[in-house]
Amino acid sequence: MRASSEAFPRASEQEVRDFFRECRELTDARLDVLVPAETIEPSLVHKAMRWSLFAGGKRLRPALLLAAGRAFGAHDTALLGTACALEMIHTYSLIHDDLPAMDDDELRRGRPTCHIRFDEATAILAGDALQTLAFQTIAEDEALDASLRVALVRELARAAGTPRGMIAGQAYDLAAESRDVTGTELERIHHHKTGALLRAAVRAGAIIARASREELDAITVYGARLGLLFQITDDLLDVTATAEDLGKTPGKDERARKATYPALYGVEASRERARTVHGEALAALERLERPVPLLQAIADFILERRA
Amino acid sequence: MRASSEAFPRASEQEVRDFFRECRELTDARLDVLVPAETIEPSLVHKAMRWSLFAGGKRLRPALLLAAGRAFGAHDTALLGTACALEMIHTYSLIHDDLPAMDDDELRRGRPTCHIRFDEATAILAGDALQTLAFQTIAEDEALDASLRVALVRELARAAGTPRGMIAGQAYDLAAESRDVTGTELERIHHHKTGALLRAAVRAGAIIARASREELDAITVYGARLGLLFQITDDLLDVTATAEDLGKTPGKDERARKATYPALYGVEASRERARTVHGEALAALERLERPVPLLQAIADFILERRA
Repeated sequence: MRASSEAFPRASEQEVRDFFRECRELTDARLDVLVPAETIEPSLVHKAMRWSLFAGGKRLRPALLLAAGRAFGAHDTALLGTACALEMIHTYSLIHDDLPAMDDDELRRGRPTCHIRFDEATAILAGDALQTLAFQTIAEDEALDASLRVALVRELARAAGTPRGMIAGQAYDLAAESRDVTGTELERIHHHKTGALLRAAVRAGAIIARASREELDAITVYGARLGLLFQITDDLLDVTATAEDLGKTPGKDERARKATYPALYGVEASRERARTVHGEALAALERLERPVPLLQAIADFILERRA
Repeated sequence: MRASSEAFPRASEQEVRDFFRECRELTDARLDVLVPAETIEPSLVHKAMRWSLFAGGKRLRPALLLAAGRAFGAHDTALLGTACALEMIHTYSLIHDDLPAMDDDELRRGRPTCHIRFDEATAILAGDALQTLAFQTIAEDEALDASLRVALVRELARAAGTPRGMIAGQAYDLAAESRDVTGTELERIHHHKTGALLRAAVRAGAIIARASREELDAITVYGARLGLLFQITDDLLDVTATAEDLGKTPGKDERARKATYPALYGVEASRERARTVHGEALAALERLERPVPLLQAIADFILERRA
């Protein structure tokens, strides 16, 4: 008998919110242990790492890793180190992305960006050090055996680097600035820039839980659709939300002539595209043939998100 | 019976030169396979990575790793991947160090630096991607079992990051700019900024060769003294060498008010310090109780180097 999304009850929006809060608390507590204290030299670099790491992020990637890992039966103990490593990679990319030579952003989540709060040199080093610490964290994670640590370093490195990871996406994004891009180019940017780490998040959870090849394939598709969904709703929020909701200036993308879904297709067609992609994410989950109410509800949550 | 430096013949200067050339060829050939081709997208980032990686570097770190690994009986097959990973870490640090917000250098080894040849954003990404690729290279090195790969990711991450690695040294160096530093502070900068990776080079070779705890301790002291020796002679060359020898402008350190050994102690006392440190490096090797003619000759070579 084939499982379907109707066969299992979906988690409620409140349960998703509670889950995200729990993940944030678990992740923040572990990150606080993993990242050197501000009192430890070189303290300026550690202050800068912590400034950006504890800036009120949603911890979406750790949450996806924990949700996927739990769905396949792994314990939090085995998942949390890699969840923190992913968040370090994500945060390092934000710090470098905000630099004057890149996106030149002065505010993120309503606070000065790392190079504004400190200085450019410190921001470059803090980003570099967070990337290093991400791989160190996995290599030193005693909850995982050596072969899993190797598989996870490989997974995160491929998702973070070139030619198919996050840095490739940053390069495509930079190349697309101040010129018109096609829908295909836009999807290529997002598939790499934000998609790669979101896919790696659910894949890493499944890898730690020793999911089967078929399960890993299905969760990869789920992660890919979720990543695209996240980006479309992000673009829509930039057009429709208020500054208070976002913690940043809305409409910024349009002024920077950044390629976005609403700019390319209009708001209504973008909303329609979001619903289609959401359906594809749920269809991938059905292939798992086990109840994954939380993963389903997370897709719903991202479709409906208001910030 | 205790081995002494007199008990074994030392390699000649020509043998050291031949060894360095061999290492350069081996490393360059493997790096060419490991780093995505310039034709692969995002091609600008791959061009920038290769521009800096194949800029005529001496491959000192790979050579030290190979020399130490061979001394303890490892084969090149097992050593070369990690040697390349180390060179990627070193190169990423040079790219970021040359950025306008850091040392603001336009020339390195007689060629435009990465951000001059390309642009700042591309240089930031190329550095980031080289760091990622370093850890990926170790994680995917099929010549090593999983536990060795984990040990090496850990070793390189600790040597590259904070609080005790290369990035800490960069931070100390930045903090020391345009003010007078003491000899203790100067040693702290070098111990981290260049010393950490040089120590990691010989340690990684020994780790791959499964050297004993005592051997690892002795080779760590050798690496530490060699790193300091390298820095003192580097500072001396900046004062005494010609531009043609160096491929960069001599006297640059003094004009930038960079802390150096000659500036702190004078040329003669710095030369004396170099000889003392050289002796300490050789004394550490004697504890190994096995012939290490190449490691001895490398110390001699760095003491006498003219470029």
